[in-house]
Parts: sequence; structure tokens; C-alpha cells
Amino acid sequence: MFFQLIRTDSGTRARAGLIRTGHGDVETPVFMPVGTQGTVKSVSPQEIETLGSRLLLANTYHLYLRPGEALVAEAGGLHRFIGWPYPILTDSGGFQVFSLAELRTVNDDGVTFRSHLDGSRHRFTPEKAVDIQTALGSDIQMVLDECVGFPADEKTVIKAHERTLRWAQRCRSRFLDVRETMGWPGTQFGIAQGGVIPAIRKESASRLVDMDFDGYAVGGLAVGEPGAMRAEMTELCTGIFPQNKPRYLMGVGKPEDIIEAIGLGIDMFDCVIPTRNGRNGTVYTATGKLIIKNKTFERDFGPIDPGCGCYTCLHFTRAYMRHLLHSGEMLGQRLATIHNLYFFMRLVREAREAVLQSRFSAWKNAFFDVYYGRDPQ
Amino acid sequence: MFFQLIRTDSGTRARAGLIRTGHGDVETPVFMPVGTQGTVKSVSPQEIETLGSRLLLANTYHLYLRPGEALVAEAGGLHRFIGWPYPILTDSGGFQVFSLAELRTVNDDGVTFRSHLDGSRHRFTPEKAVDIQTALGSDIQMVLDECVGFPADEKTVIKAHERTLRWAQRCRSRFLDVRETMGWPGTQFGIAQGGVIPAIRKESASRLVDMDFDGYAVGGLAVGEPGAMRAEMTELCTGIFPQNKPRYLMGVGKPEDIIEAIGLGIDMFDCVIPTRNGRNGTVYTATGKLIIKNKTFERDFGPIDPGCGCYTCLHFTRAYMRHLLHSGEMLGQRLATIHNLYFFMRLVREAREAVLQSRFSAWKNAFFDVYYGRDPQ
Repeated sequence: MFFQLIRTDSGTRARAGLIRTGHGDVETPVFMPVGTQGTVKSVSPQEIETLGSRLLLANTYHLYLRPGEALVAEAGGLHRFIGWPYPILTDSGGFQVFSLAELRTVNDDGVTFRSHLDGSRHRFTPEKAVDIQTALGSDIQMVLDECVGFPADEKTVIKAHERTLRWAQRCRSRFLDVRETMGWPGTQFGIAQGGVIPAIRKESASRLVDMDFDGYAVGGLAVGEPGAMRAEMTELCTGIFPQNKPRYLMGVGKPEDIIEAIGLGIDMFDCVIPTRNGRNGTVYTATGKLIIKNKTFERDFGPIDPGCGCYTCLHFTRAYMRHLLHSGEMLGQRLATIHNLYFFMRLVREAREAVLQSRFSAWKNAFFDVYYGRDPQ
Repeated sequence: MFFQLIRTDSGTRARAGLIRTGHGDVETPVFMPVGTQGTVKSVSPQEIETLGSRLLLANTYHLYLRPGEALVAEAGGLHRFIGWPYPILTDSGGFQVFSLAELRTVNDDGVTFRSHLDGSRHRFTPEKAVDIQTALGSDIQMVLDECVGFPADEKTVIKAHERTLRWAQRCRSRFLDVRETMGWPGTQFGIAQGGVIPAIRKESASRLVDMDFDGYAVGGLAVGEPGAMRAEMTELCTGIFPQNKPRYLMGVGKPEDIIEAIGLGIDMFDCVIPTRNGRNGTVYTATGKLIIKNKTFERDFGPIDPGCGCYTCLHFTRAYMRHLLHSGEMLGQRLATIHNLYFFMRLVREAREAVLQSRFSAWKNAFFDVYYGRDPQ
């Protein structure tokens, strides 16, 4: 069994579960650090492991362009290449093609684009997206989809939604063809699109369920839409996705967005927020975000977050972090990244414990009271 | 006793010793990683500790300008500020003033300069150099000296040499005045100058010995002079420095230079070579240097150095290192830095073991046979 639903909260849709892969188990809800080019920027696999992470996201688009999936396969697969023995989820590359690559032309067969690195010409089809992820040795593959921005007119949304479903079917067929020959228990997730149009979202989710994927993702959100719309679309999808499969909200997000989505029945998250913000010197604490470069921290000899047990908080002060970041020392970016990832890991771990004790809403309210500095009711 | 000479090699001047400080013992010969702005670029104190380093060099000039020695003192001293509980040697700031700062004007009283960061005006005197290092909480202070480049005419060399001795005396007086009030067992090294003129070098070394420092450095070398001249000057100095005090060859150097200097009786080294080269992708192995970004390593799935036990070599391949460095991932710079520092640490540790077994020359020849790919005789 790929996914084991351990408990659902009473009063919300929040779930605690276990994903089982050929590279070990992953407790859910889970936040995946993003290893864009195979590495989570500035930190080592050993540090990621120490933070308690057991599921990493790697970007197919980047690894396809450099060093190429053939080289990774020759190295013994992505796990060996990057020195990460735990599970890896790969995206399909589609999101980066639609956001990073140049001169895209998309038709029903696939998408042609130029590399953002050297302008070279490439083509992704649904089948190719599966083949690349298979070559990388991914534990959890994502289907190639077409993501529209926000806002988008209904015609554009419907067209992308229908193409996404056709591509999903082709991805699933290819995946089922190669699954037996992989030599490891690979899995594949479908991705629901449909913009913020409820009827299209519902149809997208339902038709994916008919294709019997190993898990289901909500895609095309966190692209600028209001939070209430995101919540509505997420809830629609999790109401349709089967209980016995994991659900993944792609590209989300801020701590508050993750907590809300867990309450709506989401199990998996990924986002560059903790890592990118860390490198820019924005750090998360129980009482909210801090811009650690600010003058106010110049002589602040306490840790970033007094209640935090991460390597950074146990050894270094806000004043030293400010010094490192002002001095352009990469150790500062690294220590901030470690702290932020620890914060996100702890967040989803605490959410899980709350679900296991059927007190998710109480935990969530208590977290927000402190995070937003609200007076407890 | 600050320095314990444990053994001198038979046949060379190579020594094995122990430096005892208020922050712990340091086995010599020792190579000091350079923590320019308080941190060894890209690596954490925990990693430096794991590499076996027990003595760090920090740059007074940089820390004086940013964040300022007063802030460091307020933080509880440099050890606490940077999270390094082991000994720290600070330079005097003089070398950076003479190499980095702008619009220098030097007279017998001291040197006025503009910050390379913001153009602000500052003045270092011998007394000020001691006061800053005392505020930082240094275990081993260096005197303010005037370093001339190579080549330099005799008049320039003599003038700088005489000024260096006058400054050394003033530094010593100031240090002895404040030593009792420090609250920890601080020490101070004199620095011999004199360019590559044997008579001046001898006089510089002799007159420093008369001032009774806790240790002695050979300064003003590794600035472009031929290796034979450097060796000659080093040998002159170590022939004059007392046996019962540690000797430090500043800014050296390459593995081969370190080994040669150990044979001439040097105990301490510092250099940015392993760290700076690491960040540029040049890595050291038992059989010489490698430029890891080279195409030849694209599909090389072995470690940087098959005989190396560092974190990098135990977990990652040359192909992955090449990928990281080509992709601009700072983890690549960090892993190369770790490897190079490990190589330098191992080098001096092996030299020490060879001295303890009175077989330094044999060890040195065996090292060079492999390093230079020579057929063993």
C-alpha cells in the first residue's frame, strides 16, 4: 500500500498519513524542500536529513537541461547522484517550461521551448516527461500539465484543462507501460487544473480520479489568486479525491496557507519560500516573520527564535546573522535556510500531532494567536 | 607554559609541539583556516571542528570595520559571536590596510586609511591594533607591522623594518599593560620583516627575540618572491627564534610550501588557498590539483580523491561536484572548501606524526613522489 491514512481530524478534513516508497516512509502532512538543480540551495543532504525531512522535490526541467537525465541515470539515478537516500518527488518540468523557458509553442502533442540557459531548442511531450522522470529514478512522478496564470479568461482555462486531461491520460499510459520495468516501486500523481472556475475544477478532479493515479495534486493555484479562491478550489478538489490516496497542493506556501490547506485535507506541500526567503534574510518565528538585516537586530544577542531548536538558533545570535548577511557571507544564507526549513518542518509535524490527537482546530487557533500576536480569546 | 616542544625531527628542523590557550590546546604543525569576517567562507564552525581544526585566524581589519570590535565585545567576544569555542588568532589588520584599504598615509605614529567598504577615514596605531584585538578577545594577537612587497629596494625594506621594530615595541608595551586586565591568558607574537635581505632579516628576528614575545612570525613573504628566497629567509629566522616558542609563517601557502617550511622549523600556517581555490573549483588530491569543472570529470563517478575520508569524498562524485559548480550552486563551493581544508588538515597532521616518529624527510619524499607523480627512487 502506497498511502496509509492513519487518522482524520474530527471537525476538519485534516489528515495524518504515511506514504510508503522504495526509499522509505514519509509522514504526512509533509513539506518538501525544493532541490531545484538536485540540491536544496546552500544546504547539504545531511542537513536536510537532520531537519527531519524525508521527501525532497527536484525539478525535472532543470535536471533535464543540466546535467541531463542520461548522465543522472548513468550515475545510478538521482538519489545516488545527489547523495540523498530518501524519497524524491519530481515535477513534470511543465511549470518551468511555462514560466522560465523562452519561445514556447504548445499544441496538443506537447510543448516546444528554448532553454533559458543557452537558447537550445527542446520538446516535452507527456511521454517524454514520464521518460525523463523515470530516467531520474523518481519515487513520485507528476504528469505534464498546462498551468494558466491568474487571472485567465474562461476559454483559456477550459482549453488548458482539457489538454491537461488528455496529457494526463497519455502520461498514465506511458507510466503504466514502463512501471514494471523500472526495478523500483514508482508512483505517479495526476494534477487537477481548472483555474478558479468551480465547475471546471470539479470536472478536472473527477476525471483524474477515473484515471486511477497513485495520488492527486491541486495545480494552477498560488499564482496570484485571492486566498479565499484558493481555499475554495482546494476544498472542491479534496472533496472529490479519494480518501485512500495522498493529496498535494503544488507550490504552497506561506505557513498560514499550509495550515489552512491541511485543514482542507491536503497532505503534501512544496515551496521555495523558506529557502528563497532565508537567502534574502527573511526568517520565520513563532511570532511572525523577521527581516534579520534590519538595524534593530544589530545588537540583539538572542537567537532568531527563542523557542527554536535548530542548529542556527542553538549556536548563533540575531546580531551575528545580521553581520553575516550584511557581509555577503554565504554562511548567513545557509544558516537562515536551515532555520526556515526547520520552522516549516516543525509546523507540519505539529499539525500532524494535532490531527493524531483530534485537536487540529485548537492547535491552529493557538498557532495563529501567537503568530499574529492576537490576544487569546 | 604556552608552548610545549614535544619533539624535533632528526635530520631536519621539523617540530611537533603543543600550543596551550585559554580555549584549549592546538597540536603543531597547524594550518589555520582563515575566517576573514569571522566565518570561514561557506562552512560552519561545526564543520571546521569536524575537520579537526582547533585554531582559526580572524582578520582584525575586516571585523574592526564591520561589525566593529565594540559590538563583538558586547556579544561576549569573538568566540561567542561566531560560535567557535576553540582558540582564535587575530592578525593586526596591518596587512589588509596595506593591501585593501584606500589612500593610505603612513608615518611613525601609525597609518591612516580609508575603508574599502564605504571610504570612511580610520587610523591604526600599534596601540590601537592591540586594543582592537583585545576587544575581540583574541587568544593570539599579532603586532602591527609594515609589510613591503616584492621586489622592493633596500631603502624601502630598511625603513619598513625599522618602523616594524618600533611598532613591535609599542605593541608589546601596550599588550603587557592590558594583559593582566584581560581576564584570559592572551598571548602576542612579534613579526619579523626585512624583505629578502639576509642581514635585515637576521636583525629583525634578533631584535624581536629581545622583546620576549610569546611567539614569532615570519612576515612579508609569500608576496611574489622566488621559493628559494622564501626558504632562505625562513631558515634564517627559525635559526634565531628560540626553540621554546612557536613560529608562524604568515600567508603560506601551497601544500608543497607548507611541507618545506615545516622542515625549516615552522609550526604555524594560514592561507586562503584551500578555501579560495575550493570556491573556484580547484581541489587538492594526493596526486595533485584538479580543476573539477573540466569536461573530463563530466561522467566521472568516483570521489574527488579516492583516499580521502572527508564528508565530500564519502558522499559525492566528481561528476556531481562539476554539476554543482557549473550550476552556480553554493553547495558546490562549500563541499570543495570542506574537501580542501580536510586535505590541508591531514597534511599537517601527517607531518606531525612523521616528526614524532623522526621520519619527516622520508614522509616528505613519499608525499612528493605521489603528489608530483614521480617514480619512487
